[in-house]
Amino acid sequence: MGSTGSIGRQTLDVVRALPEEFKVAALAGGRNIELLAEQIREFRPEAVFSPVLEDQPHVRTRLLNNQIRFASLEEMASLPDVDRVVVATSGKAGLSPCLSALRHGKSVALANKEVLVMAGELVMLEADKHGASILPVDSEHSALWQCLRGEGNRVSRLILTASGGPFRKWSKADLAGVTAREALKHPTWAMGPKVTVDSATLMNKGMEIIEAHWLFRVAFDDIQVVVHPESIVHSMVEFVDGSVKAQLSYPDMRLPIQYALSFPERLPGHFVPQMDFAKTHNLTFEQPDWEVFPCPRLAVEAAKNGGTYPTALCAADEVAVGLFLADRIGFLDISRIIETTLAQHQNKSGPTIEDIEDADTVARAEAMEIAGITS
Amino acid sequence: MGSTGSIGRQTLDVVRALPEEFKVAALAGGRNIELLAEQIREFRPEAVFSPVLEDQPHVRTRLLNNQIRFASLEEMASLPDVDRVVVATSGKAGLSPCLSALRHGKSVALANKEVLVMAGELVMLEADKHGASILPVDSEHSALWQCLRGEGNRVSRLILTASGGPFRKWSKADLAGVTAREALKHPTWAMGPKVTVDSATLMNKGMEIIEAHWLFRVAFDDIQVVVHPESIVHSMVEFVDGSVKAQLSYPDMRLPIQYALSFPERLPGHFVPQMDFAKTHNLTFEQPDWEVFPCPRLAVEAAKNGGTYPTALCAADEVAVGLFLADRIGFLDISRIIETTLAQHQNKSGPTIEDIEDADTVARAEAMEIAGITS
Repeated sequence: MGSTGSIGRQTLDVVRALPEEFKVAALAGGRNIELLAEQIREFRPEAVFSPVLEDQPHVRTRLLNNQIRFASLEEMASLPDVDRVVVATSGKAGLSPCLSALRHGKSVALANKEVLVMAGELVMLEADKHGASILPVDSEHSALWQCLRGEGNRVSRLILTASGGPFRKWSKADLAGVTAREALKHPTWAMGPKVTVDSATLMNKGMEIIEAHWLFRVAFDDIQVVVHPESIVHSMVEFVDGSVKAQLSYPDMRLPIQYALSFPERLPGHFVPQMDFAKTHNLTFEQPDWEVFPCPRLAVEAAKNGGTYPTALCAADEVAVGLFLADRIGFLDISRIIETTLAQHQNKSGPTIEDIEDADTVARAEAMEIAGITS
Repeated sequence: MGSTGSIGRQTLDVVRALPEEFKVAALAGGRNIELLAEQIREFRPEAVFSPVLEDQPHVRTRLLNNQIRFASLEEMASLPDVDRVVVATSGKAGLSPCLSALRHGKSVALANKEVLVMAGELVMLEADKHGASILPVDSEHSALWQCLRGEGNRVSRLILTASGGPFRKWSKADLAGVTAREALKHPTWAMGPKVTVDSATLMNKGMEIIEAHWLFRVAFDDIQVVVHPESIVHSMVEFVDGSVKAQLSYPDMRLPIQYALSFPERLPGHFVPQMDFAKTHNLTFEQPDWEVFPCPRLAVEAAKNGGTYPTALCAADEVAVGLFLADRIGFLDISRIIETTLAQHQNKSGPTIEDIEDADTVARAEAMEIAGITS
């Protein structure tokens, strides 16, 4: 799901490299219909979704046939041929198909941050109930997951590494004039625009703290963020005896994607060059500046408050980042809009999916209003 | 075994810190009889060994009583109350009690390098036959072992880190005049004199490659050494998918000792401070200079030749290091003596313990002769 996006295309790279191991049973793409058409020709899935196919019958006729049919996201998540569902849509669109897959006992390789941020408790509960697993695709959570492999419940701390984004060491004054173009130049990772901006504000780390909390059942205060500009150490786990385990590689999302597809097996890698420690390597770590980058603090506060607060966080962030990318607000407005949206939020504790949907709608409208945009 | 040595004393620190978890059933010390007497008073083992107790009946009378009796190393390795035997004697003295423990189905926490270097095949065979485990205590092998935890047999490379010792970046000419006093100043680890000199010649890395080969069944050519002066990353494992796992901590042998005692459990640590990534940390890696430090090459060649070659390697190294510590030969003579001893060695393949003992005796005599020392 999200086959035409950045993670989706890289997932298909992995499948292409290991044709004996993986088969694409279903593809859900976005609005890039030419790319989706190519993917259909190459991978010949049994079911396909795209909002374009849903809306435009003539495109449906052109791309699909007797062997390749249209299916909704919820429907394809339940197909008997499907073992693992890669949820790589961004925003709240991933939530409902993720739940659908879990309810059908399918394991979910999760690349969408908002699913666990908005509905962590609910999603983990469904996973447990149906004996289905959530397998992280994010490089940081994959690293934590790999470090936790074979270990019992003896964790004292999770250490999430952050590249620090393009504005590491900038002051608040410097950040005031930042443009979308500058924010989209990430130093180490090539990602979609929303995630790249979240990476520049460090909001991605805030969301990753929340995800890590749900995935690995570790208290918020035992999850720490450390800036590591080289993006070689993808994250670390500290155990009660003081031992720390880290997972390393040159940055390439196809490694964690492949691990989430192949787990518990490890399959030969085709993308990431072997780490060359013979050439001098210098791995550095530093404390993030939480004054200049307030988003992680806002995220953790929202998550500790629980209920629909994290939904409001995601909604406000999505709106604010969208406005920033459209050059309608400044970089510092992003955190300001999120903070104000959260301050105004009417919480609902123990939310259902419907409560989450409602909170999302309300928070989006509020964020727009705070930004001074009237629809 | 080796309770009065560096690893032995640190093992007792761990036991002292976790009195609910561990009990000392037997103590085998060296010639520091006052320290052994203190250890006996504190830990009240049921069996004690020391060469001094063996030789001097009046010391035996003074230290032992009805509850605390004398026992040979082989005998104490077989006591019913013993679950795990820490073999922390240096040199070939560890071999026979290690085999004895394995034959009684006891797991062995192995701090002695020579046991696996001299008799790796034989020792692993005995362990397999009696369903007993060899648990590494060396910081490097403990790191590899921790990184391999929960992983299947999908390793592509073991990466042993080396501090580089006190003479990192020195030239051959610089090394010619090095004294024992200089060689004993290790930059990061406090260890016994033999191991410290092996660390300065990098022979310890050569031996560690051989140990890693036997412990983890990885081919010699897939084991790499990287210099890492900070001694924070204790070693790394690379898997077939390109993912690398590393184990980190501030250097303190009590961490790997405790892990070998508590495995498969992890118990609270009392010695190693929490890694502080907030303070800037800089982890560096560089290629060792194999021209200046030939010992690892000699070790791997000996191990690839097999048979009694590794025994000759250990024997020659022990003699040469002893002579160097006594200021009777120079630093560069150590590798020269080892290389010549190996060149002269009459190999015996598929050696028994007796063959190994014989090869050891012969190689020691040859090494002395090569050094120009006549007994």
